[in-house]
Amino acid sequence: MWTGAPASSGFGVDWRSDDLAPSPFPSSWFPRTDGTDRRHLLARSADLLPSSAALPMEEAKAAQDREHKFLSIAVEEAYRAVDCGHGRPFGAVVVRNDEVVVSCHNMVVMNTDATAHAEVTAIREACKKLGKIDLSDCEMYASCEPCPMCFGAVRLSRIKRLVYGATAEAAIAMGSCYQNANLEIKRADGDGALLAEQLFDNTKGKFQMY
Amino acid sequence: MWTGAPASSGFGVDWRSDDLAPSPFPSSWFPRTDGTDRRHLLARSADLLPSSAALPMEEAKAAQDREHKFLSIAVEEAYRAVDCGHGRPFGAVVVRNDEVVVSCHNMVVMNTDATAHAEVTAIREACKKLGKIDLSDCEMYASCEPCPMCFGAVRLSRIKRLVYGATAEAAIAMGSCYQNANLEIKRADGDGALLAEQLFDNTKGKFQMY
Repeated sequence: MWTGAPASSGFGVDWRSDDLAPSPFPSSWFPRTDGTDRRHLLARSADLLPSSAALPMEEAKAAQDREHKFLSIAVEEAYRAVDCGHGRPFGAVVVRNDEVVVSCHNMVVMNTDATAHAEVTAIREACKKLGKIDLSDCEMYASCEPCPMCFGAVRLSRIKRLVYGATAEAAIAMGSCYQNANLEIKRADGDGALLAEQLFDNTKGKFQMY
Repeated sequence: MWTGAPASSGFGVDWRSDDLAPSPFPSSWFPRTDGTDRRHLLARSADLLPSSAALPMEEAKAAQDREHKFLSIAVEEAYRAVDCGHGRPFGAVVVRNDEVVVSCHNMVVMNTDATAHAEVTAIREACKKLGKIDLSDCEMYASCEPCPMCFGAVRLSRIKRLVYGATAEAAIAMGSCYQNANLEIKRADGDGALLAEQLFDNTKGKFQMY
């Protein structure tokens, strides 16, 4: 259980580096029985960098206009989700080289898929469209601050920049559904755990890194 | 940025409850410029409940055998991911009333989809098969401790119990890819943010709760 104790080790380019600043992730991200602090295993976001603050006025205005343009598309998508009955009012746009790659909205109801949030849907569609799983040359514009699942997906896709509009509180106020107080989590007992650990030894070298 | 300070408010059945124990989530889950501590807005997992510890010996053995059976299927799936070249060695099984609903493996390479981890794929398939997005009558057995994205998806789907085999460190040791040290996250400037906040006011009452 989360105790509020600061991380004792670091994060960085490599998951295993241990000499950098504290990770923002709690040791209980994956609750465990042994109380091990594993925050150093998880990556930290870059510090927030308001993109227009340090720019000359004209450049700052252009940057803000650009941001507004793509965020407006995400908001339009969110309205579309509701108008079409596809899901809740959330939209997300993936942008590459100043062009919209995909513009998606929440499809949870339409697809009967609890994972079909706008951001996850946009990442899936962008990967397909660009033919790659590494979106490190892309940005995302989201109508609302992503939930933990979507934030995780953004990181996995290596998107380089995320700009959002409404805060998570706005989504929560209208009844967001990240709650699951009754989830029990446990590691399997000895044999099962061993079987799973051996999996990596038995398959290493047989799969491609990505 | 995460400072290691303990949460000052609570969590619970309702996102907005504020009189319970500290949340395990850091205020920087969604990094923000204003430093607001919002951990109380995020749900905490139930305390870990080793299911077999308090049971009579025979029942404990039966529970362990049952767990082992489903975890073995998840591990078999993980081997399949590698054998088929579909992705990395991860498998996940959704179980309902002692029966396997779906058994899935990592499809990231096969589907060119950064979000197609075994757990997310299993939730998507289970939702489709059962025709609902609420999997609160289901358990998940995963070959490995889920990444943050998958853990978020488990919570969103309301799965009631998660049993995993290998620890996250085992996945990390073979080169897991949750790292994105270069992600910049920002809230849009005034107008864009306002546009997005208004979205909820303008659509409330028009979409179904789920």
